[in-house]
Amino acid sequence: MSSSDVILGQNQYGKAEVRVVRVNRETPVHELIDLNVSSMLRGDFNECYTSGDNTKVIATDTQKNTVYAFAKEHGISTPEHFLLLLGRHFTQSAEVSGGRWTAESYPWERIQVPGAAGELRAHEHSFVKSKQEIRTAALTIEDGVEHLLGGFSDLTVLKTTGSEFSGYPKDRYTTLPETQDRIMATDITTRWLFAAGTDAQATDFDAIYAQVKQIVLEQFALVHSLSLQQTLYAAGEAVLGAVEAIEDIRFVMPNNHHYVVDLSPFGLENPNEVFMAGDRPYGLMNASVMRKDAPSRPKAWEWLGGFC
Amino acid sequence: MSSSDVILGQNQYGKAEVRVVRVNRETPVHELIDLNVSSMLRGDFNECYTSGDNTKVIATDTQKNTVYAFAKEHGISTPEHFLLLLGRHFTQSAEVSGGRWTAESYPWERIQVPGAAGELRAHEHSFVKSKQEIRTAALTIEDGVEHLLGGFSDLTVLKTTGSEFSGYPKDRYTTLPETQDRIMATDITTRWLFAAGTDAQATDFDAIYAQVKQIVLEQFALVHSLSLQQTLYAAGEAVLGAVEAIEDIRFVMPNNHHYVVDLSPFGLENPNEVFMAGDRPYGLMNASVMRKDAPSRPKAWEWLGGFC
Amino acid sequence: MSSSDVILGQNQYGKAEVRVVRVNRETPVHELIDLNVSSMLRGDFNECYTSGDNTKVIATDTQKNTVYAFAKEHGISTPEHFLLLLGRHFTQSAEVSGGRWTAESYPWERIQVPGAAGELRAHEHSFVKSKQEIRTAALTIEDGVEHLLGGFSDLTVLKTTGSEFSGYPKDRYTTLPETQDRIMATDITTRWLFAAGTDAQATDFDAIYAQVKQIVLEQFALVHSLSLQQTLYAAGEAVLGAVEAIEDIRFVMPNNHHYVVDLSPFGLENPNEVFMAGDRPYGLMNASVMRKDAPSRPKAWEWLGGFC
Amino acid sequence: MSSSDVILGQNQYGKAEVRVVRVNRETPVHELIDLNVSSMLRGDFNECYTSGDNTKVIATDTQKNTVYAFAKEHGISTPEHFLLLLGRHFTQSAEVSGGRWTAESYPWERIQVPGAAGELRAHEHSFVKSKQEIRTAALTIEDGVEHLLGGFSDLTVLKTTGSEFSGYPKDRYTTLPETQDRIMATDITTRWLFAAGTDAQATDFDAIYAQVKQIVLEQFALVHSLSLQQTLYAAGEAVLGAVEAIEDIRFVMPNNHHYVVDLSPFGLENPNEVFMAGDRPYGLMNASVMRKDAPSRPKAWEWLGGFC
Repeated sequence: MSSSDVILGQNQYGKAEVRVVRVNRETPVHELIDLNVSSMLRGDFNECYTSGDNTKVIATDTQKNTVYAFAKEHGISTPEHFLLLLGRHFTQSAEVSGGRWTAESYPWERIQVPGAAGELRAHEHSFVKSKQEIRTAALTIEDGVEHLLGGFSDLTVLKTTGSEFSGYPKDRYTTLPETQDRIMATDITTRWLFAAGTDAQATDFDAIYAQVKQIVLEQFALVHSLSLQQTLYAAGEAVLGAVEAIEDIRFVMPNNHHYVVDLSPFGLENPNEVFMAGDRPYGLMNASVMRKDAPSRPKAWEWLGGFC
Repeated sequence: MSSSDVILGQNQYGKAEVRVVRVNRETPVHELIDLNVSSMLRGDFNECYTSGDNTKVIATDTQKNTVYAFAKEHGISTPEHFLLLLGRHFTQSAEVSGGRWTAESYPWERIQVPGAAGELRAHEHSFVKSKQEIRTAALTIEDGVEHLLGGFSDLTVLKTTGSEFSGYPKDRYTTLPETQDRIMATDITTRWLFAAGTDAQATDFDAIYAQVKQIVLEQFALVHSLSLQQTLYAAGEAVLGAVEAIEDIRFVMPNNHHYVVDLSPFGLENPNEVFMAGDRPYGLMNASVMRKDAPSRPKAWEWLGGFC
Repeated sequence: MSSSDVILGQNQYGKAEVRVVRVNRETPVHELIDLNVSSMLRGDFNECYTSGDNTKVIATDTQKNTVYAFAKEHGISTPEHFLLLLGRHFTQSAEVSGGRWTAESYPWERIQVPGAAGELRAHEHSFVKSKQEIRTAALTIEDGVEHLLGGFSDLTVLKTTGSEFSGYPKDRYTTLPETQDRIMATDITTRWLFAAGTDAQATDFDAIYAQVKQIVLEQFALVHSLSLQQTLYAAGEAVLGAVEAIEDIRFVMPNNHHYVVDLSPFGLENPNEVFMAGDRPYGLMNASVMRKDAPSRPKAWEWLGGFC
Repeated sequence: MSSSDVILGQNQYGKAEVRVVRVNRETPVHELIDLNVSSMLRGDFNECYTSGDNTKVIATDTQKNTVYAFAKEHGISTPEHFLLLLGRHFTQSAEVSGGRWTAESYPWERIQVPGAAGELRAHEHSFVKSKQEIRTAALTIEDGVEHLLGGFSDLTVLKTTGSEFSGYPKDRYTTLPETQDRIMATDITTRWLFAAGTDAQATDFDAIYAQVKQIVLEQFALVHSLSLQQTLYAAGEAVLGAVEAIEDIRFVMPNNHHYVVDLSPFGLENPNEVFMAGDRPYGLMNASVMRKDAPSRPKAWEWLGGFC
């Protein structure tokens, strides 16, 4: 084979995990936003790969600097707005045809301290990290088209009853007994695609985030579940029913198995009271719930993994 | 050297990370406790090591089974009470002279769902994991004496102002500029030693836990800090002032550095608004705050590492 | 919106991280293979999601059992062959239209012990884990077409010289100085796509694996690098030049920055001798190197993330 | 309680995880050493805690700078020698009465490339990270006395036969069947204490490291094991028999359980051929093997955790 038979295929490069903390100190009540930003650029970078010619390669260090400078110049209102600022900036460069930008956003709550009358009040500049879940945002720009995703990772939930699993096919390798009552537990990771025509400036991404999280928690709690898949679908359907701006919502949900411990060797019954929480293996569900008339937009998703 | 010149020194063995989830289903409002329990035994196990004679070795699998059986037989009221049950059980065996038992306890909150009148209410059997911190308990029994520790790990806090650092000695290798205003951030890990005479049955370990956590958060928020050490001491002093049953409280606190980004190359000022959150290296503080008249009880602490 | 406007989009489900260790004991010289296998099925599972009807849902527990049973019945010759066995088995079911199967394979080496004449020899049944990298395999079956990938993750390499970076564009946010001599370090993750017509039974996947690893290491060492991209491309080109059966090879390579420490405040020069190894941020490169005439097979890649 | 009843107990502070990479470029064959260094100081720091007076507090940033400056000024011959340099430097300060210094050392191997005659040769400046284990060193200085430990973490080994476990006591909670043939697997973490009179300058710490690692691997392979404890002791005894400079060696060894999968539901036998590698729980052994006449030196160990 001659080397002329080999070509550069799809490629992107950038700076990953730029940790930027932005404090708004305009009033004594400080605001805090805490992001982990990655910026990946696409374009005609062929010569960098084949001959080491970096003429078109915006240094990844420059991408990092831009994140910090923009945090000062423009502030950070929401992760989604900040990624749009970055993506639109970089795609103005002649070298850049598109890219992918992501952010993790770490939620912080104000520490509660005693107020004048002894009641608790939120402190002005002291915070405790929530960690319940990590908020995410992701932006693809390709051929001048923007695809914007909101989301969150690893919201861990468990219900001690109200979950069944039965009716599945039995083959030579099936040993699982059917159950009408089990623990169901998962770490909910989800991303939602904003409809193509969404006006970002007019969109309250924080409010949508809070709304989606609450809907997903409610559905998990309230649906009597015949399978984790059914719960997933109910959550997606409820989100689409409530939030006009979302056209497709996808989930990655492990089934965090809790095994009923056999206590009969010790002369004890165990009516779903004592469980062993397993690590591996675990069930795993990936699915999209979408509007029937939503356009196909695979570019929004395919580079993320796990959501296809 | 002949092998008779070699002896077995200190030793212990057991089962680590037994994941036990206990559901109380006595009423439709289920209770959930979620622990990671380890059990390590000490005793005269010399022959196991030197000749492979296991006559005295309570199998680690038996220790695991005991955890699950006790969860059913006795329930789990608090991590501290459960460790006392285990420790007292195992030290009844002739083979066992003492041991160390630990638990991590993962906090879960009830999911909020709409109530009859539209207001939110706590769901009966659906939970979301808090993750703000991990609660810990540790018990040493040696020579018939019990040493019981409560605690928590990795409560992450940050204040955007109200922290200084100056006045330190300058030597050839000092370059750090003094500062009157910086971000202070840490992951608080702490363990507290219950006084020797504590009556475990009469002690509300859950209430003490909640109280210590709130005091530590408040002190972090309210103390104008001249160093992370000063904040640590203030937290310890406040805990000892409020909780009679604690005689020694120790902290492991990293200083999670947040660096002010130099934006001057871009013609921008940065008056403590944009920070880079660093990973490594980080400052690290370990210290004990104790009652002046507390007895010396090194056995409670020395096997845990980081707290000496 | 009525719920009839909502549909189930792409979906898959299965069992993740089935840890299977297979020992071949046919002779006193035991063979060991250590895999982490995941199995994800696709098909018409709509009713499971929308109504909780599990009639077509092959339980994930059954998938797990199949992994273990097949390990006994068929043995595990290579990760690639084992995934083909699993994928072809599951896609025989009427319910299943396709799926994705992955394996991590952990390399073990025989422990060296003294032989009869004092020289070291490989022990028959005692092993030490290599950990230098993790071998991977991935199989997509969709519409009756198989896409098979070999690969490895996190082969960490570093060169102390022979790496430059200069000639990149300078904009308002550029501060990086050009360099003719730097440390270059990365964790090489790569996957390679076997050509569509590959006869799996006739292919020595272990030999190809060893060959690709050696080529990639050599190119990293021998290429005087003007950018990490150039090194990546050289490695891909060399692999395609040497291994006929591969038609597309993709890389994910972070640029693990090593910063020259400024020792001038201490009156010391630092001619690239003392470095701080950074954690975050890091550069990141994703790229494909492929044969010019290779068919487009996005299904092989898009669900993996990071490789598009 | 008045605050005068509260005192500062044991305490230390410093800089953790200083990542220093040192390249020796004196010849074209570069040498590479890659450390993660922590420095913790003890002394009379009472006023820093109680009043925020930092007059005696050597800034943790200064400690970090010292690590980098010393790497240039003195080079890094071995982790042990480097810690001695640091510890002796800091304890010269009037403020400092002692401290603890630790290092992780990451092994790198030279990449093998084709030589002139086609045979493989070691490259001059290109390396691949070994990862088989992490080398460690730890130094305590207290009251003018030095305690120096060598060691390594997480050397993962497995034997497919030659391991039994039986003869243990049976109580109400015992269900484990006895076995004459099982997989034994562990991650060996060990630290060894150099005898008090050891002349560090005359000691070849690298040679001792290589020797201990080889002995431990050999004993694991060659001892027919009646328990993991027996294997541990045999390894310790062999090390003490071979290395005069070591007076006490301690191990932390999990028992990484491999469960024989029950294939009988599928009509298959499983004579120790197919195993499920478990995650949690796991057995855990900690023990010291020491010379009978070794002096008691608890200060060397107690702050490390897990080794007491």
